[in-house]
This record gives sequence, structure tokens and C-alpha cells, in this order.
Amino acid sequence: MMPPTEPASSDPSGLIRLLRDGRQWSVSELAATTGVARSTVSQRLDMLSALGLISRAEPGSSTGGRPPKRVALLADARLVLAFDIGASHAHVGVASITREILAHRRIAIDIAAGPDHVLGQVTEVADDLLDGLGRDRSVVLATGVGLPGPVHAATGRPVRPPIMPGWDGYDVPGWLHSRDGIPAFVDNDVNLAALGEHDRFGVGVDNFLYVKVATGIGAGIISGGMLLRGAQGIAGDIGHVRVSRGEGVFCSCGNEGCLEALAAGPAIARSLREAGIEVTSSREVVARVDAGDVNAIQAVRQAGRDLGEVLSASISFLNPSVIAIGGRMAGAGEHLIAGVREVVYRRAMPLATVGLEIRTARSGERAGLMGATALAADHALSPAGLLALAARQHV
Amino acid sequence: MMPPTEPASSDPSGLIRLLRDGRQWSVSELAATTGVARSTVSQRLDMLSALGLISRAEPGSSTGGRPPKRVALLADARLVLAFDIGASHAHVGVASITREILAHRRIAIDIAAGPDHVLGQVTEVADDLLDGLGRDRSVVLATGVGLPGPVHAATGRPVRPPIMPGWDGYDVPGWLHSRDGIPAFVDNDVNLAALGEHDRFGVGVDNFLYVKVATGIGAGIISGGMLLRGAQGIAGDIGHVRVSRGEGVFCSCGNEGCLEALAAGPAIARSLREAGIEVTSSREVVARVDAGDVNAIQAVRQAGRDLGEVLSASISFLNPSVIAIGGRMAGAGEHLIAGVREVVYRRAMPLATVGLEIRTARSGERAGLMGATALAADHALSPAGLLALAARQHV
Repeated sequence: MMPPTEPASSDPSGLIRLLRDGRQWSVSELAATTGVARSTVSQRLDMLSALGLISRAEPGSSTGGRPPKRVALLADARLVLAFDIGASHAHVGVASITREILAHRRIAIDIAAGPDHVLGQVTEVADDLLDGLGRDRSVVLATGVGLPGPVHAATGRPVRPPIMPGWDGYDVPGWLHSRDGIPAFVDNDVNLAALGEHDRFGVGVDNFLYVKVATGIGAGIISGGMLLRGAQGIAGDIGHVRVSRGEGVFCSCGNEGCLEALAAGPAIARSLREAGIEVTSSREVVARVDAGDVNAIQAVRQAGRDLGEVLSASISFLNPSVIAIGGRMAGAGEHLIAGVREVVYRRAMPLATVGLEIRTARSGERAGLMGATALAADHALSPAGLLALAARQHV
Repeated sequence: MMPPTEPASSDPSGLIRLLRDGRQWSVSELAATTGVARSTVSQRLDMLSALGLISRAEPGSSTGGRPPKRVALLADARLVLAFDIGASHAHVGVASITREILAHRRIAIDIAAGPDHVLGQVTEVADDLLDGLGRDRSVVLATGVGLPGPVHAATGRPVRPPIMPGWDGYDVPGWLHSRDGIPAFVDNDVNLAALGEHDRFGVGVDNFLYVKVATGIGAGIISGGMLLRGAQGIAGDIGHVRVSRGEGVFCSCGNEGCLEALAAGPAIARSLREAGIEVTSSREVVARVDAGDVNAIQAVRQAGRDLGEVLSASISFLNPSVIAIGGRMAGAGEHLIAGVREVVYRRAMPLATVGLEIRTARSGERAGLMGATALAADHALSPAGLLALAARQHV
């Protein structure tokens, strides 16, 4: 069926996706596999070659005939930067254009210090990492940035982010681009984590839900193979869905009974303190679960049930085949998942749970960084990205 | 960003969408507006012409120069059939390839009579409607079919539909195609109603939710411009999401507290009967609301609140900008919507409701038929559809 609008694809021919595997390809193989005309493939390769992004190898001939030239993406001839910015820390990475993270550092930040300060910090670390690799900004094609709040994806500007004073409407891509001339792309951190987890551990799964349970709770949704953003870029913002256990429990948003107010890390820690157990952070809750503390296990399992209630509804809306649960609290492993499963299998329709896998996310705390890398690499190697690079290099 | 998979588009160039407006176009205008090469546009037009789908007009020249030939789609040279099949009635339509419904009839059916019987009934009515228009099956390019249950969209086979004995896994497109050689495309009726309402009254809105409230409750979701289907084709199946008022209210699905068991037409009628008011159908409930019966108004408003609870969660997941509520109970007008709004504005996050419009669907009971028409016309005019037609006509 014709979709009402056609989503833009940055790799319409699928050529880059093939080259990304690191193998050597001939023009004929690329044309046959993508279904694109040989002449178009050749043109595209000429451009990649002129930009220094591919190598052409003339393999030694053993048959006497003229063997075809073979091409391969020069994975780290050019690089991308990835910033996964949270409320109190940021991950900074330098990656190859084939999405391999070559260097990575986690730093403490304060998001409330404002964009100028925080962006200054992360770009300084990026320079340092580049330096350590013996490279500099001149080989960087794009920067991908995740922020802990709603982002208008087309412009990269935060949209009334609740925990980010000074960032509302701020031109994050503009700040980064004016510093070093490198194009930057920004999205919500949970969307990027969903992209990262999907890119690595959800390949071939078109209906995928990533849920982050940490200081807050949010989800990134891939449906029909596309990342959903919604009208204001806040699709997946599930922390404030009301849960049945929530009567009388007030949330920082001003409402009552929000999922986040019952099942995020701070809420679990609070419920344990109310039972006389001194824990101050999600990390301590997870440590107690690991140590077999039955109160902590029960509290985490109950949080899983609350989350399961909201995810049961999400299954009715979205009918995913995989739900991956990440974030600090996913460190509590099977106890959180067990609570989720308990409610989902009781509440959701049998048909929706037949092929449904609910599991812990595998990419850990680097999910967001992997997603920011994917975002940057995709843009860098898109037709628009390559044209911009050609202009920059006067090719 | 590169989507993990690229959804198929049946009109990649957007050419058909331009021609659909009924205006006369020159090749240059089409090439300039679509961004497709003139030669490609010409090839495509030659094919449409050979298939008898477009007219070429040589406008009288007044300037002395040679004015360009202009082309227009011959809207009703070829037709499509649309079947919107419900549990107890079906809408049968004959439409132009520009989606104008030329003839339409509503008939009583019994879905439980099985596919052979029901498809026999609707195709007979279609023949009769064609006859009334002085046409026959030879000019029909495609058939679009909506069914009241989950459908695997790629194969057109129902997937364990709860109210359709004998239909599970049945090859509906195969039955229709073997009868008359016309390709058929099948989807869930609510998805098609969403498509129909969006096609006519949601143009330019990329994040759109259509909710049908009748004997059951279901939703069709358009997100990022795409109709969401989910892993088993049951995305939007919201009738069995639990609502807070649902304790002790049992649903036909075997669960407790489902939205449908509290807020669908039969549930509202039952609640009125419990208050001593004799109503047996949704239609009678709507009539009482129209007549100003305060008990009926209160019951409908409460159903709106239950629905609002579920839609509040959907807003967190999907962040739509328009929610259109259709189906028989939407006939109760502002009372149902008022209940929905009351809860949504209390529960949903302010940012998500800033630009949100919640309104009654405008396409009435023909929404599904309009969607089935769009489905058929899109397929008929897709490159694959045109190639199939060329083969059929030995062009």
C-alpha cells in the first residue's frame, strides 16, 4: 500500500549497507545485489573514491583474464563522533564509519550547567580521544548526539526538556557545526539507545521496543522498521502513564500514579527506605538484588509488574516481537523481567504474546553511544552527507 | 537517518499522486514537480497510455509556438472494487481509480457463514453495481477488502480472527483472484477505516490515530506517515487494554476489565439496562442521547472517560497530532468526545496535548469502504500493479 508520505532514506540503493560489512565487492556484485544499474553504482563508487572513502584493489590474476577491480570501504579513513549526554554523565566516543567504537570515555557532567558548558566539555574530550588515536577533526564526517529530553529531530533542537534548564530550543547542531564545520545530528537519548540495541541485537526484527529504566523511564519504538518520533518527537515517553497501584503516589510532573513515580530507580530506593533499608541510588538497589536481599528483590519485581502493566498496553498498540529492557535497573536482571512477564502474560491478548520475546537489553550502558554512532555514520554516508563532504573538500 | 528496513512504496516517484488530482499535466511539469528525469516520466506515461489509463490532449495553440501535449488520468476508464466486510453487514463499492465511489450498497451478511458464502455475496453485489453503471469486470483493476479481524497484510489471510469461524488462514485474495483474475488486497477493517479517514480528512497529518467504537473497540495507527501493522498485523487492537473502572467486569476474551467490556456499544447498552432503561443496541443508545436522555448521556460520557484512559497511554507511546473517533458510538457526538478529552487533558503530559486535536471522524460508516478503495487504487496504479495489468492485456 502506498504510505501517505514516504519516509526519507539516506541510503536508497542499499549500497552503503553492503559495503559496511567490510568485504571487497566488484561493481557487478554490488549492482546485482542492490538491483541498481551498474552505471549508477559506478558513479556512486567514483564519488566515494574521490572522497577517500573506499579502496580499489586489483587482485592478482590467476586465469589470464582481466579480473574485475574490487572495492571496499576504508573503515577508519574517516571517523564520526558520538555523544550520549545524560543528566549527570556523558559518554563520548570516536568511531569508524562502519560503526566500530575506536575510543570511548565516560565523564561526569551537569546537564543544568547549560548547552554551552556541556557541549564544550564533550567536544574537548572528543579532541582528546582523537589525539590519542593520532587523528584530528579534519577526518571527522559527522557527529551524533543523544540528549536526555524531547528533541525535534529535523532541527536537532530540544523541545521543552524538563530536566535541562537553558536547553529549550537551543540550536545544538548549530553550536557544534560552528565550532568545527562538522555536521551534527541530534535525537533523544532513548531513541538512540533503541537504535543502538536494534542495530546490534535486533537485526531483522521490524517491530521492536526498547525500554530504559533508570532515574526515569522511557521507550524507543521501532515499528515497521522505522523509528517512531511522533508529532513533537516525544513518542515513547511512557514514564507518565498511570498505573493501577499509583493512587496517592505523586510524581514530579505534578500528576498522580505515574509509572516513573513507582518503578524508576529512585522510586524503588524510596520504597526500600520506607521499609527501613538504607539505599540511596539505583546502583545500591541493584547491588542488594545481586546480594540476594529479599526486600530488594521484591521491590524490583513489583516495579517490573508496574512496568508490565504499561507494556501490556503498548503491546496492544504496537504488537512488537521483541521488547528489550535496558538502563541501570535492568542490571537487576531476571527479577525485573520476571515482574514484567508476569503481568504481560496475564494481561495481553494471546495472539500478541505468541511470538513475543521480552529480554534484557544486551548493549548495556553503551546503547546510547552506539545509537549516536549509527545516527552520525548514516548521515555521513547518505547521498546528502557525501555531497556536503564533496563541497567541503572541493572534490 | 537510515531506517533499519525501507518500507515498500507503490508510487516511488509520486507521479500517480500528482495525476490523481484530475488536472492536465505536461511532461515537464511532472518531471519538475516529482524530481524524476523527463525520460523516466515519459516512459511511465507511455505505459499508462498503452494501458488506456491516461488521455493526451493537444491544446489549441494561440501563440504560434508548439504547445506541449498535456496528460490527465482517465479517472473512470478503469475501476476498482471495495468490500468493507463487518460481522453482520458489508459495504460494497465500485470506485474510479481516483478513489471516487461511483456506486455503493450496504447488505446484511453473517460473517460466521464462512468465506465462501460471504465472498460470494459481496462479489455478486459488485457485479450488480457494475451492471448498473453499464460496466463489467473486464475494466476492474483491483479489489480492496477490509475484514473484521487481524489480517496478515502481506498474504491477505486472516490470523486467528475471534469472531470469524472458518476464516482462519483462509486465502481471501486467492478466492477472489481465481474467480475473475483481478488481484485482491486485504487488511483489517479498522486499519482501512484509518486509511480512509486519513486519506480524506487527515492529509498532511503524519501522526494520526483513528479509533472505532462500535460493537468492539479498535484503532488504526498512522505514525511518521506509515500505517502501523505490528508483528502479527494486530497493532491498534486496543479493545482489551485494562481500564481502572474494570474490576469485576468480565470480557468475552476471558480477561477482566477490558476497555471493550466497559465502553463499547453493547457495554453501554447493558449499563443502561441495569439502570432499568430498555435499550438493546448501540443505535438505540445513540437515539436516546440525541433525544437528551440524561442517563444515556451520562453512560456515553463515562465510556468516553474509559476510552480516554487508554488513549492517554496511546498518546505517551505515539504522540499523535490528531485522534479521530468513529464507529456507531461516535454518533453520540460531543458526549463521547467530552469524556475522552476530560481524561486525556488530566492524564497526558502537557507537551503531548499542546497541538493535539481530538475530534469525531468525518467519513462516517463509509470510512472502511474509502480505505478499501484507497488500498485497491494504490495497488492498481503501483509499478507492480501496472506490470501485472500489462501482462493481462498483452501490452
